Amino acid sequence: MSKVAIIMGSTSDLPVMQDAVDILKEFNIEVEVDIVSAHRTPDKLFDYGKNAHTRGISVIIAGAGGAAHLPGMIASLSPLPVIGVPVKSSNSIDGWDSILSILQMPGGVPVATVALNGAKNAGILAAQIIGSSDKSVLDRIIAYKESLKTKVEEGAKKMKGNN
Amino acid sequence: MSKVAIIMGSTSDLPVMQDAVDILKEFNIEVEVDIVSAHRTPDKLFDYGKNAHTRGISVIIAGAGGAAHLPGMIASLSPLPVIGVPVKSSNSIDGWDSILSILQMPGGVPVATVALNGAKNAGILAAQIIGSSDKSVLDRIIAYKESLKTKVEEGAKKMKGNN
Amino acid sequence: MSKVAIIMGSTSDLPVMQDAVDILKEFNIEVEVDIVSAHRTPDKLFDYGKNAHTRGISVIIAGAGGAAHLPGMIASLSPLPVIGVPVKSSNSIDGWDSILSILQMPGGVPVATVALNGAKNAGILAAQIIGSSDKSVLDRIIAYKESLKTKVEEGAKKMKGNN
Amino acid sequence: MSKVAIIMGSTSDLPVMQDAVDILKEFNIEVEVDIVSAHRTPDKLFDYGKNAHTRGISVIIAGAGGAAHLPGMIASLSPLPVIGVPVKSSNSIDGWDSILSILQMPGGVPVATVALNGAKNAGILAAQIIGSSDKSVLDRIIAYKESLKTKVEEGAKKMKGNN
Amino acid sequence: MSKVAIIMGSTSDLPVMQDAVDILKEFNIEVEVDIVSAHRTPDKLFDYGKNAHTRGISVIIAGAGGAAHLPGMIASLSPLPVIGVPVKSSNSIDGWDSILSILQMPGGVPVATVALNGAKNAGILAAQIIGSSDKSVLDRIIAYKESLKTKVEEGAKKMKGNN
Amino acid sequence: MSKVAIIMGSTSDLPVMQDAVDILKEFNIEVEVDIVSAHRTPDKLFDYGKNAHTRGISVIIAGAGGAAHLPGMIASLSPLPVIGVPVKSSNSIDGWDSILSILQMPGGVPVATVALNGAKNAGILAAQIIGSSDKSVLDRIIAYKESLKTKVEEGAKKMKGNN
Amino acid sequence: MSKVAIIMGSTSDLPVMQDAVDILKEFNIEVEVDIVSAHRTPDKLFDYGKNAHTRGISVIIAGAGGAAHLPGMIASLSPLPVIGVPVKSSNSIDGWDSILSILQMPGGVPVATVALNGAKNAGILAAQIIGSSDKSVLDRIIAYKESLKTKVEEGAKKMKGNN
Amino acid sequence: MSKVAIIMGSTSDLPVMQDAVDILKEFNIEVEVDIVSAHRTPDKLFDYGKNAHTRGISVIIAGAGGAAHLPGMIASLSPLPVIGVPVKSSNSIDGWDSILSILQMPGGVPVATVALNGAKNAGILAAQIIGSSDKSVLDRIIAYKESLKTKVEEGAKKMKGNN
Repeated sequence: MSKVAIIMGSTSDLPVMQDAVDILKEFNIEVEVDIVSAHRTPDKLFDYGKNAHTRGISVIIAGAGGAAHLPGMIASLSPLPVIGVPVKSSNSIDGWDSILSILQMPGGVPVATVALNGAKNAGILAAQIIGSSDKSVLDRIIAYKESLKTKVEEGAKKMKGNN
Repeated sequence: MSKVAIIMGSTSDLPVMQDAVDILKEFNIEVEVDIVSAHRTPDKLFDYGKNAHTRGISVIIAGAGGAAHLPGMIASLSPLPVIGVPVKSSNSIDGWDSILSILQMPGGVPVATVALNGAKNAGILAAQIIGSSDKSVLDRIIAYKESLKTKVEEGAKKMKGNN
Repeated sequence: MSKVAIIMGSTSDLPVMQDAVDILKEFNIEVEVDIVSAHRTPDKLFDYGKNAHTRGISVIIAGAGGAAHLPGMIASLSPLPVIGVPVKSSNSIDGWDSILSILQMPGGVPVATVALNGAKNAGILAAQIIGSSDKSVLDRIIAYKESLKTKVEEGAKKMKGNN
Repeated sequence: MSKVAIIMGSTSDLPVMQDAVDILKEFNIEVEVDIVSAHRTPDKLFDYGKNAHTRGISVIIAGAGGAAHLPGMIASLSPLPVIGVPVKSSNSIDGWDSILSILQMPGGVPVATVALNGAKNAGILAAQIIGSSDKSVLDRIIAYKESLKTKVEEGAKKMKGNN
Repeated sequence: MSKVAIIMGSTSDLPVMQDAVDILKEFNIEVEVDIVSAHRTPDKLFDYGKNAHTRGISVIIAGAGGAAHLPGMIASLSPLPVIGVPVKSSNSIDGWDSILSILQMPGGVPVATVALNGAKNAGILAAQIIGSSDKSVLDRIIAYKESLKTKVEEGAKKMKGNN
Repeated sequence: MSKVAIIMGSTSDLPVMQDAVDILKEFNIEVEVDIVSAHRTPDKLFDYGKNAHTRGISVIIAGAGGAAHLPGMIASLSPLPVIGVPVKSSNSIDGWDSILSILQMPGGVPVATVALNGAKNAGILAAQIIGSSDKSVLDRIIAYKESLKTKVEEGAKKMKGNN
Repeated sequence: MSKVAIIMGSTSDLPVMQDAVDILKEFNIEVEVDIVSAHRTPDKLFDYGKNAHTRGISVIIAGAGGAAHLPGMIASLSPLPVIGVPVKSSNSIDGWDSILSILQMPGGVPVATVALNGAKNAGILAAQIIGSSDKSVLDRIIAYKESLKTKVEEGAKKMKGNN
Repeated sequence: MSKVAIIMGSTSDLPVMQDAVDILKEFNIEVEVDIVSAHRTPDKLFDYGKNAHTRGISVIIAGAGGAAHLPGMIASLSPLPVIGVPVKSSNSIDGWDSILSILQMPGGVPVATVALNGAKNAGILAAQIIGSSDKSVLDRIIAYKESLKTKVEEGAKKMKGNN
């Protein structure tokens, strides 16, 4: 079965990145979570990036803030699709540094970037990637999208009731 | 076999988006290309988004510029992974509008955004997504990454020869 | 009689969008309010956009935040004038994403964009649009502008009294 | 019959603003064009703004660049709907100054802002405003939207033929 | 004797603009304070701008936020030097709109712009303008600059004592 | 008679700064021009800033680009009003660095900042500063403003003739 | 023995700059701390910059906010390496002004700029500069980097324990 | 003797980075130049970063554009001072991505960032770092600063001769 790796540069990124863990569990997709710092544990970064695809991982989600090099360096080392989550950390300039240092990868080494602090969407995207070749996961995505619609409709109904 | 759909908002986006077509052909992955304008052909957008996953497509790459709604609307309509390419079109403000209107999707509806004009990386990412469940494609990705290394090494050798 | 439709992408936009409701009621203009999410209820979006002009609506006000596609997609689907309100929602980058993804529409499909969180001005603009062909509404606009002047003059008087 | 006034701060804005003139003529809507500089002809600005609604004008389109005060000042003086076109003039900082000084109007005095250099959309929006109370103009808008679709479809067909 | 006029678009700007009043009183320079809204009291704006130089005023300080047209419109109407204070009001996008709509005036109509919320510096600049032709005011400026130095030196001494 | 000093950080700023020289000559105001680099000739900077007011200079115009420290350092050293011209030099990031490093001076040390490359307006502002205490210069400013109006009116007439 | 000078424009910068003092003490490197304001104590600035290298100082760390001229002016006056710390002071626009006015120095006069509020990194960089010619300091840097790794590994272990 | 390593992500960065080579040769400081791509040659990156300090290198200058990870990753791997040069490459968004992904390093791992395309200043800074412990190099820096002054003075003289 497919597994998604969720890594982040620092434990301080966990409150944001937890959303990815939670939504993937909702989709019944196995996850593993770890701290891998591009700048403070470069050896771990190398081992992690080079070997992830050899131990059953299908997609890697990497979150980081400021000059965020973790997603891009993992993408450099691994042949797997890498999803980058720009984290608006305390040392970030309104998130612009996190976004640009993850998004603007050079030709040859893509990072699938999601919105600032968009860890939930990173999880959904990982599920969609697995779903693109796994019918049962695709069906869960379709059901999930249906549930989004229902929630909006309930909100609309409630709002009209209040007015 | 997996197929990648490449769509764009206007024929004027083709010079940028052609890079996605070319790299996917290099990876021997089947592509289909079409013009789908969120703002000028909304009915086609709806049909396209709702049905893509029912006719053998695994990944959708959508490129657009300015207030770029095509990638996000396709992601709204399709359960497949959608890769967004912000195009620096003539009506764009240095690309910021294209980037932000593709990247900053709300929770529930991710778009895998790549760099400004990064259609080549969109193609590679699509290949990686297919490769995450298809060993032969994964091997081509690994070989491709090796070729990137070789090119840099040749450039380094040449530069040292010149100095 | 003319009616203004006020729609928004999420109930969380209501605190901002309520200003449009309130000012239009001040102008004695009929409003209808609804939640229509471009990304989570695309079918409702299509029905709404295609039919609004057939059921007595003259102007549509649409508010959304982040990668805000609602105003532009409604403008794609409806022949009516569409006023877009960029909402500084919690997932927005200081409002820049909301503004640019509403303002920078391609040639052919305009959205009349107002200031960030400027729902009150969206309401006044809708009244002005109706007033451009309805003398009694125009007169109310003229009276309203007079009232703005009076309030500033009273503030000036009070300030001078305090000094 | 309804008439649209198109004004701009300088003759150097005409190449951009001509698009508004042209599209309105396509819609068979009468236009008048004038130069009114907020900073260099303030008396004309006052006369123009105060009297436009008394001489058969329904909508005012105002284009300006840099610290662009013309649209906002006309909106201050006139009860009519005012459409602002941010012009990327030679003295503008990538258009940001033009956009922000037109868009960010205070509560009470809206300007319907369109995209940078979006004079064509300003013209279409003016037509939509007239169309909101004039069935024959509304029909022309509907036909125009149909023609946009046709052009995209032809582009798509041609592109596929070439590939 | 020279007098400085301090005007602002709204009473809500007073907490910022008070700094200009205070520092000018420190310099023993006469001030008059008023509310003049470019957008809500255009007639007052015109009278004020056209006549200020005829009633003993030497310099005008104008503060405003958002799409801030007051300083530029006063500069359009008056031959006097106009100092603009960009106010970071609640409807401002981090102050960028206030700054750009005051700073980026077209050739022919300057506004002497100071820092965001820099009303104190606007007052000092007004004093320097008067001091450029009034030896006694110039001397007070020189003394003021000396006092700035003393305060820094005291801070430095205290900090070293603490360490 | 009053004299205006025009200084700049480098001879490469002269094409921009020449506009200040030219407009001041039009106003019959004496100018002196010099190169003073804050970063490469700090001793000259100190002498210049400390002594300008002792040798008949009334206003200093200082232009610089990139991390532009010349206007602020001159304002630190001189009691005279200092006008800063942000120059969009080749090493500038679209002018943002030039603008922010001149505009955002701390409390106590103002720089009267004009638009990017706005040397002409710097010259007019210097004339207005002199005119605030010199009736004959004030009259020339009033005449100049009249001439701006005439030019716009001629442009308007010509444009209407062409249509 | 090498000594590092840490200066800042105002006592209000001390809470940020203290990080540089602390980390250098951890590295057993001697520091001296002072307040030197480019704008309010220009004479002290000159003396400080011209003489620092003559009294045993090897590296200068200078922190400032807003239009931050202290680091660049010190770099203009001293032949020593100067490290600039952009401080997000209360008068700063999200730190952009501080960053750009320190970073964008003209050719010939570098400032080694670190992240916004990055005083700790300024201290480490100063230690690295000393370490580049002092083996014992280099060894402490190597040990410090090892300690960073250990802390991340402990965080990772703890996080896994919690899950 | 001290040696400076100059590395860059791609041969396309060489036209910018050559300035660092040239100025260091002017200072008679030995350089070695190489291509090291963080994203395409990660193994070389690791070897280079881990060993540079063991083979006589004192300072590393690293230039890269877009999502520029080379300087930060080298700083992660080496205890030496690392100077980062943000390159405005063709895939960069006006240089903002290059600057922010080099500058905004997390606490613990500094990169001494210079101006956009500021390779010349990177070279001078490297020389200053060597000069901070090598009197003969310090003297060359002092002489270099003197030569900057002379060039400005000659420019000033020539300009005055022309006027």
